[in-house]
Amino acid sequence: MNLEKLIRDVPDFPKKGIIFKDITTLLKNSDGLNYAVNLLYDFAKGKGITKVAGIESRGFILGGILASKLNAGFVPIRKPNKLPAEKISATYELEYGTDKIEIHKDAIEKGDKVLLHDDLLATGGTMEAAVKLIEELGGEVVQIGFIIELCFLNGKDKLKNYDVVSLIKYDKE
Amino acid sequence: MNLEKLIRDVPDFPKKGIIFKDITTLLKNSDGLNYAVNLLYDFAKGKGITKVAGIESRGFILGGILASKLNAGFVPIRKPNKLPAEKISATYELEYGTDKIEIHKDAIEKGDKVLLHDDLLATGGTMEAAVKLIEELGGEVVQIGFIIELCFLNGKDKLKNYDVVSLIKYDKE
Repeated sequence: MNLEKLIRDVPDFPKKGIIFKDITTLLKNSDGLNYAVNLLYDFAKGKGITKVAGIESRGFILGGILASKLNAGFVPIRKPNKLPAEKISATYELEYGTDKIEIHKDAIEKGDKVLLHDDLLATGGTMEAAVKLIEELGGEVVQIGFIIELCFLNGKDKLKNYDVVSLIKYDKE
Repeated sequence: MNLEKLIRDVPDFPKKGIIFKDITTLLKNSDGLNYAVNLLYDFAKGKGITKVAGIESRGFILGGILASKLNAGFVPIRKPNKLPAEKISATYELEYGTDKIEIHKDAIEKGDKVLLHDDLLATGGTMEAAVKLIEELGGEVVQIGFIIELCFLNGKDKLKNYDVVSLIKYDKE
């Protein structure tokens, strides 16, 4: 199956000049969804993963499915002020300014083997921050999985000490 | 398994006087997650469901898992300005003012049999709006599933023409 054909290019979203890679056309297609999930599952299985952490909010979708298939727990990594209990946060750079993500302190136990998931790897700033959160809580990042990788933004450089997998790679914009 | 024991009460979140029902303690527990998923799956299976629509953002987690288990497509219903392509929206009442949710126009095809999912049923305003979106696009709402139902807020009244299922019911605050 050619997953790339199920991705929709939306020009000028969220702002002029950006071509947005829309995964909703893949998600709504049950064959496409299952195919993508099974590829990511095949990368992740047999590694003793105990938790899958998904990044808000598109990372919750396949993150949840992968947790279920791997018989692991699911952990949400969220934007500020969304998680109700005791938490830690990590800051990352945006084009202009910074942003922050948070995780519950009790989400990861020392020794947890963690699969991190997000839908798309761009510059890698968010995922680098997510790795810090998992490690600060004593978890081991066993793999980092994406549906889409925008290779021309070199996000993998920020994650070079980790096993990074992605299903659809774009070499140019 | 007593799922209620896996829910954490967080007092004064998101504001003073509210006791927040935190599902992250259930999600991170792989046995609890599987148990909850299988209960909702048992309610939904055999009904010919073709799409599972989950409401941003906690509804994406079990919504995604249920779509995968049911061999259905997954459709995100999102907060304003998050979906990139052509969409429709529905407005619902909040305690003060109104809010809005959106769905892509091409997310549902005429005749799709839809399972709607969110983590929690409170006053039912958001889910009532979600039902409108699905029906406006020609979908049939076959079932509406929640993890938690706050029965004392009577949200079911707004959904009385539908098959509503929930796993954990609270009769008082």
